[in-house]
Amino acid sequence: MKMIPSYSAFARILALGALIVLGAYAQAQTPTDPLLSWNNGPAKQAIVTFVKETTTQGSPKFVDPVARIATFDQDGTTWVEQPLYAQVMFAFHQLGAVGAKDPKLKEIEPFRTVLSGDREAIAKLTLPDLEKILSVTHTGMTVEVFQKSVQDWISSAQHPRFHHLYTECIYQPMLEVMRYLRANGFKTYIVTGGGQDFVRVYSERVYGIPREQVVGSTAGTTFGYKDGKTELTKEPRDVRVDDNDGKPIGIHLMIGRRPLAAFGNSGGDQEMLEYTQDGGGARLEMLVHHDDATREYAYGPESKIGTFSDALMAEANKRGWVVISMKNDWKHIFAWEQ
Amino acid sequence: MKMIPSYSAFARILALGALIVLGAYAQAQTPTDPLLSWNNGPAKQAIVTFVKETTTQGSPKFVDPVARIATFDQDGTTWVEQPLYAQVMFAFHQLGAVGAKDPKLKEIEPFRTVLSGDREAIAKLTLPDLEKILSVTHTGMTVEVFQKSVQDWISSAQHPRFHHLYTECIYQPMLEVMRYLRANGFKTYIVTGGGQDFVRVYSERVYGIPREQVVGSTAGTTFGYKDGKTELTKEPRDVRVDDNDGKPIGIHLMIGRRPLAAFGNSGGDQEMLEYTQDGGGARLEMLVHHDDATREYAYGPESKIGTFSDALMAEANKRGWVVISMKNDWKHIFAWEQ
Repeated sequence: MKMIPSYSAFARILALGALIVLGAYAQAQTPTDPLLSWNNGPAKQAIVTFVKETTTQGSPKFVDPVARIATFDQDGTTWVEQPLYAQVMFAFHQLGAVGAKDPKLKEIEPFRTVLSGDREAIAKLTLPDLEKILSVTHTGMTVEVFQKSVQDWISSAQHPRFHHLYTECIYQPMLEVMRYLRANGFKTYIVTGGGQDFVRVYSERVYGIPREQVVGSTAGTTFGYKDGKTELTKEPRDVRVDDNDGKPIGIHLMIGRRPLAAFGNSGGDQEMLEYTQDGGGARLEMLVHHDDATREYAYGPESKIGTFSDALMAEANKRGWVVISMKNDWKHIFAWEQ
Repeated sequence: MKMIPSYSAFARILALGALIVLGAYAQAQTPTDPLLSWNNGPAKQAIVTFVKETTTQGSPKFVDPVARIATFDQDGTTWVEQPLYAQVMFAFHQLGAVGAKDPKLKEIEPFRTVLSGDREAIAKLTLPDLEKILSVTHTGMTVEVFQKSVQDWISSAQHPRFHHLYTECIYQPMLEVMRYLRANGFKTYIVTGGGQDFVRVYSERVYGIPREQVVGSTAGTTFGYKDGKTELTKEPRDVRVDDNDGKPIGIHLMIGRRPLAAFGNSGGDQEMLEYTQDGGGARLEMLVHHDDATREYAYGPESKIGTFSDALMAEANKRGWVVISMKNDWKHIFAWEQ
């Protein structure tokens, strides 16, 4: 019996060692169900099938990683939008701060109404009223000053019904979809009617989506110098609204290719889903339907916010889009439920 | 002598095997100099120092990977811009195609001049002339049709002096910087005065930069339907010129944070470099100086294209920006030289 194994035997031992080490590693990495908060059903199945088809080498629908783009609307798709968009709550809050510095503002409508706190009167504000409020609270300051004010507000602002931070009112099932897609080589984007500079403040922390992957409504900025330092000031001009046709336009501007998968919940997402689907090949279009008044909200055609019209439902059915029932498809809605 | 080693001995062999395997892997991965086309000197040293400072854990200037953004101007910084921008050559070429379909165009200035091929007359075209030419050749078609025409042209168009494809007239040292930065966790962007939709056609293949990381000049698009399919049509309105102050504005719009490193070569890049530097901490600002008439071109304050004014040189010196001498800092300029 040789005491020293031959080189080839040694090589075999090395190879065996490496295999066992790598095998243990692979086993440790074996994922549990990536969509734990989803009930088994056609919605969950559609996601899993889409990912397998587009990412399995040799699949006829395999897609090169550079083209794996998935876009998510935000309000009503990844977080709560009722009773009022978080960004509008922020704007009302900021109006208080602006009013404290500029008391004249308190005498002018629509600011007087908002500052009065009269809920009934506030509920009657018109779109031009809201634009004035957004202009006063979202422009005239540097990008950094604006984002600091968002940061300050969002780190403590709570949802009026759930008594959790807005950034905790995120739909856990959608976070799981984002992570599942990213684990399979997709780049995930927020494509929102909300403000791009607003969402960028928390997108990385809350969604794991870096600032540059947020496509939202924007307005112009002016480049200038203050005390010899460069700065960008937010202006009330060149407004681009990232809703309806603004979504495919924004996607082309910011990303430059049609998404492979798109997620929305209302009429404002229709064009994005159409644009996604018309790219051909394996695509996934999903709409969140708010039909769970107990755990979240139930609203549809009649809601002023997040309108899911009968016409949209008809188009979803005709085009084969997947409608997610919050009530039936989601085991958990929020992380705090678990 | 036991024939079967004890479990602990077996574990030691496994561990040894794994170490040797991993060690061999690490050795195979040991990089050679990532900046092979650079001569040793202050420019090369500045790049290496910057990368080490910002990416070494525990370094006082360490930067979180999400903030590692590097922006590169294109014309004159990553590829040849003399005697005329490649995109202008493309526009002249396209004008021929447009003229063939619409013979009336041949009778109207400035199109008649371009189509005549009279070089002296062409050289005298004004900026408004050029805008008319860009409008006719860059708008009125879908995004896909436009990009197909760029693809067709750029796959065969050659530089008039070098007799290589334009996409081969790339500065090898800058490609090495891009790869070196990416290998160290940086996201690399093109930030160009050229057209965003134009550069996106070849950015992935030529620079390894995906379409969504190209920031350039843009114009509006219209969303619509043709034969029931969605499409985006390029329009001659809402033009955003990504040059001078347009570069920091474009960077904020498309990326949302100040770059950590910025590379340019002319006055159009000044604001981008200032904006980068004013972010504070470890930053890198570099300007390519075209001082090599033998291997490429020598031009500076007097050039209509890629003007590097004396004032810009003075600012570079004052602010400590690194000026790259093509002649002295670059061992090779083009890949085909090697």
